[in-house]
Amino acid sequence: MPIEMGQLLPSMSSGQLLDYMAECRGLVLEELKAIVPAAGELQPILYDLVFEYPMREAKALRPAVAVAVCRAFGGPLEGVLKSATVLELYHNAFLIHDDVEDGSELRRDAPTLHTRHGTPVAINVGDAMLALALQPLLDNVADLGLGRALRVMEAVSVMARESAEGQAIELAWTRSGNWSLRDRDYLRMVHKKTGWYTFITPAVIGGLVAGCTQEQLLRLRLFATALGTAFQIQDDILNLESGPGRYGKEAWGDLWEGKHTLILMHALRCADAEERQHALGILGRARPPHQGHPSPTEQVVERLTALYQEQQITHRAYDELTQLLRHTVQVRYKTHEDVRFLHDLVQRHDSIAYARRVAARRARRARLLLHALDPVLGASEHLSFLDGLIDFVVDRSH
Amino acid sequence: MPIEMGQLLPSMSSGQLLDYMAECRGLVLEELKAIVPAAGELQPILYDLVFEYPMREAKALRPAVAVAVCRAFGGPLEGVLKSATVLELYHNAFLIHDDVEDGSELRRDAPTLHTRHGTPVAINVGDAMLALALQPLLDNVADLGLGRALRVMEAVSVMARESAEGQAIELAWTRSGNWSLRDRDYLRMVHKKTGWYTFITPAVIGGLVAGCTQEQLLRLRLFATALGTAFQIQDDILNLESGPGRYGKEAWGDLWEGKHTLILMHALRCADAEERQHALGILGRARPPHQGHPSPTEQVVERLTALYQEQQITHRAYDELTQLLRHTVQVRYKTHEDVRFLHDLVQRHDSIAYARRVAARRARRARLLLHALDPVLGASEHLSFLDGLIDFVVDRSH
Repeated sequence: MPIEMGQLLPSMSSGQLLDYMAECRGLVLEELKAIVPAAGELQPILYDLVFEYPMREAKALRPAVAVAVCRAFGGPLEGVLKSATVLELYHNAFLIHDDVEDGSELRRDAPTLHTRHGTPVAINVGDAMLALALQPLLDNVADLGLGRALRVMEAVSVMARESAEGQAIELAWTRSGNWSLRDRDYLRMVHKKTGWYTFITPAVIGGLVAGCTQEQLLRLRLFATALGTAFQIQDDILNLESGPGRYGKEAWGDLWEGKHTLILMHALRCADAEERQHALGILGRARPPHQGHPSPTEQVVERLTALYQEQQITHRAYDELTQLLRHTVQVRYKTHEDVRFLHDLVQRHDSIAYARRVAARRARRARLLLHALDPVLGASEHLSFLDGLIDFVVDRSH
Repeated sequence: MPIEMGQLLPSMSSGQLLDYMAECRGLVLEELKAIVPAAGELQPILYDLVFEYPMREAKALRPAVAVAVCRAFGGPLEGVLKSATVLELYHNAFLIHDDVEDGSELRRDAPTLHTRHGTPVAINVGDAMLALALQPLLDNVADLGLGRALRVMEAVSVMARESAEGQAIELAWTRSGNWSLRDRDYLRMVHKKTGWYTFITPAVIGGLVAGCTQEQLLRLRLFATALGTAFQIQDDILNLESGPGRYGKEAWGDLWEGKHTLILMHALRCADAEERQHALGILGRARPPHQGHPSPTEQVVERLTALYQEQQITHRAYDELTQLLRHTVQVRYKTHEDVRFLHDLVQRHDSIAYARRVAARRARRARLLLHALDPVLGASEHLSFLDGLIDFVVDRSH
């Protein structure tokens, strides 16, 4: 139930919203083509790969937020396009590095960059994208004047630091198997890891280019903060609810990776002692290296079993070898049954509904904060986009 | 045999040179401490790790080059320190990511960051360092004025791109097993991968801060280009000649990794068809995952052999299982014998002496180019440092 906005603000349908983002995406891809060096031996080994993720089916949400905020405040489209492209470069560089760090296999309905080209190349392509992001920030000086260009750079600098901090927190939780966390720990982590670069910095940059006052920038930041948390929670929900065809990542990938989500944290909190202990045991196990295919060790163990049945191996040798294989070659991996247990736990405790309620609260807060900006803004499709975005963030199916 | 410089330039001993670098290092570490957020939960999982490589025994060559060039041209020390720290941040971020990409195990006499903290953390720490490098570049505006600060940023932007391009070229050669390369391909690759961020950008930034003319900057760039190639060739030589205690990396690590060096390229060129084919076969194999320790598979095969000897396993089962283990669990790895073969090949064809000659030619060129700058520069310890650096680069033992 969306809260009513001022009369100035007609709502934007989901279709119009997607059109708005698609238009921004087209403009940003044009900019990107101008930034990335073209032709030459470096194309197949570096610069073509820069385009891999951006050219896959993507929403280009971040550029759209920057453009919409800028234009809603009467700023010029041309003034914000270079910065929007920088945001897209950072976003995709982070995706590439995150996919390596999380061992993810699917991104936007296709194999992740490191799955396709190897980890070394993927890390380097990410670094190249971060390098390419510097020049447009410098070019901003000519377009925006010194003051605004420097403030945009500063916003990007803070964003990059916050994102790395958020990622560090999440990695530490995963590494240490720390599940003694409160919701607010999770909310702070996703605020840093996702919120800054998905909503806060895009909105602030849009505002900076449009010449917003300090107070307006602060309000924009609060609006974007609320929206960012809602967005990430919905992302976690989609991961549990969708099949890969619809969502573009692995179904239940978060459970396989043992990712900390509000949903799983809620389920663990509600679980009885025995369930909880079993779940923590599962979460302590790694995901198998190639999900869906038996691991090399599994193949060997399978063959070993067959040879034992054919009496080619004594019982003693069979025992010893299977144990050795399990202990030396392989850590214990999560199984389909394990992941199914976690999923059932989430269902049993209605944890998705709980997460949905938290996301909805954040979305309502975002609407109130946007509403508070409404009086200074005239009606425009850009403002309608921002309003529509609030519903989209929590209702989207991809 | 160093070429004589003008009388204005007394040479600097190796000890004085190291003192000069140590002093620069101390100043840069102070700056770094001011830049990196201190205290709080993020220290053990992120910001302490930022200091790991810089606090190990390191020369801080890049900051020293920037400082020496700046001061030789009469520029202020304080003006160049922030940029020198940015160079150190980039350098160490690249080291961390390169170590992951190359699968290196030792860096500066200690385990590499990913060996100690895992690949995900290592990638993220590198990204955080790239993020931290942005703020001091912005602070330069207050210290240097707008024009110079922007040109320094531009220099860093070009540097980051060139480094990623160099890395892309090297990774592509490794991945495709391409050894049909000319010396000039190698020289271009190391120019991009190492030269830009080790000498060219430090020298250019020093010159920019000191207010050098365009022509002086061009000469500095040529000087640094020659020096950079000489430096990398000497690095390759050290890798083959030193034990780990002295050099800080694995002895013969480049051979284990199958890295493209002038030395190995020369040896392959001189080898007869049979030697060459054998060497290429070796270079096509991966390095074993944990050098020095038997791999898990090797342990299993060892146990399998013992059980076969005890007649716990039939011959057929033994054959089948060892073959299966070799094929499914393990790709074929380089052995100590393989690496010894490569090393012998290099010795037999005097390839180290060849590389030394190429490096010496580059060093002589660097001296001539520095000499050409001499008349505009007064005698100073900074100029003496740059002169002494030329000998140091090709004579150093670490």
